[in-house]
Amino acid sequence: MARTGRRPGNQDTREAILDAARSAFSERGFDGASIRAIATSAGVDPALVHHYFGSKDQLFLATVQVPINPEEFIPKIFEQGIDGVGERLVRTFLSVWDSPVGSTAAALLRSAVQHEWSARMLREFLVTQILRRAQKELKVDPAEAPVRAALVASQMAGLGMIRYIIKVEPLASMPAEDVVRLIGPTIQRYLEGPLD
Amino acid sequence: MARTGRRPGNQDTREAILDAARSAFSERGFDGASIRAIATSAGVDPALVHHYFGSKDQLFLATVQVPINPEEFIPKIFEQGIDGVGERLVRTFLSVWDSPVGSTAAALLRSAVQHEWSARMLREFLVTQILRRAQKELKVDPAEAPVRAALVASQMAGLGMIRYIIKVEPLASMPAEDVVRLIGPTIQRYLEGPLD
Repeated sequence: MARTGRRPGNQDTREAILDAARSAFSERGFDGASIRAIATSAGVDPALVHHYFGSKDQLFLATVQVPINPEEFIPKIFEQGIDGVGERLVRTFLSVWDSPVGSTAAALLRSAVQHEWSARMLREFLVTQILRRAQKELKVDPAEAPVRAALVASQMAGLGMIRYIIKVEPLASMPAEDVVRLIGPTIQRYLEGPLD
Repeated sequence: MARTGRRPGNQDTREAILDAARSAFSERGFDGASIRAIATSAGVDPALVHHYFGSKDQLFLATVQVPINPEEFIPKIFEQGIDGVGERLVRTFLSVWDSPVGSTAAALLRSAVQHEWSARMLREFLVTQILRRAQKELKVDPAEAPVRAALVASQMAGLGMIRYIIKVEPLASMPAEDVVRLIGPTIQRYLEGPLD
């Protein structure tokens, strides 16, 4: 097979950056970690981090190996307005789990439950990549946004657990659209309903 | 230290029965496993199984090491009628997690996510010990009871994950009564609301 132009050294650099990023995000959280500090710790120039991974968001997603890009799917869920956003969120969530990358989602959840380190990374992912973006789209009282987001996360995480990991029937084998119809209203209430 | 009247052999017998019960429940499920078959596999008389563990339900609870007895707490939640049952369920759930046995609940959930075997046992526990009892108390259309029970399980499992394992704020540090107020209505809807 013809060698490509990419030298093996590039792969090592990528891995060194990813290792440094994982430590930084895990120890200092998404907000506390800087591209500059990650580059220093990996022994490379910050420009190289941007070259390989783009933004800090993208670098973070690469370290958690998330199979989807929240930057794309979150605005899509909200662009049709608040009506039906609960159903669209559940539908998107199920389409990821039911797709070939679903096993990665299960692996993420498994790992988060096992290791404090992974739990911290999943929490950072949820808060900075999913919940913050959703809060921006939501246009609710900013003081209420974090609790609404955490409530949504609680129903979604449990749906993943019960349908895909513990596999409790009839949720485990139910057609996705039936799940959307049953759980969508809960998500809708958490997003825009009264909080008492 | 003075020896008690209990011979070491008793402990071995108990362990042998528990081992046989774990295999039986895991391989054949709660309904498919019989005290007689478990006794045979442990090499003891069925009467001895009853002597050590009481009913099949109690034997099963001993194998999963569940820190609470659903036979007691489920009727208590339902005895005041359907009104407020969602809030009482969330309150009971949180009081277990916030108590000294909470670490056992976390260990159960962790283990269920890690091992197919534990997931199966947790599913059997949920279905036969919690959901069936709740369905009996509920007096809803029996055809709808399993889906209502699975929906409740999905919200409860996710609440456990997000509050106690992944620890997403503000849910992680929120006073229990605030969680009850926020999530109780979801449980109430799953138990008695329209399913569409």
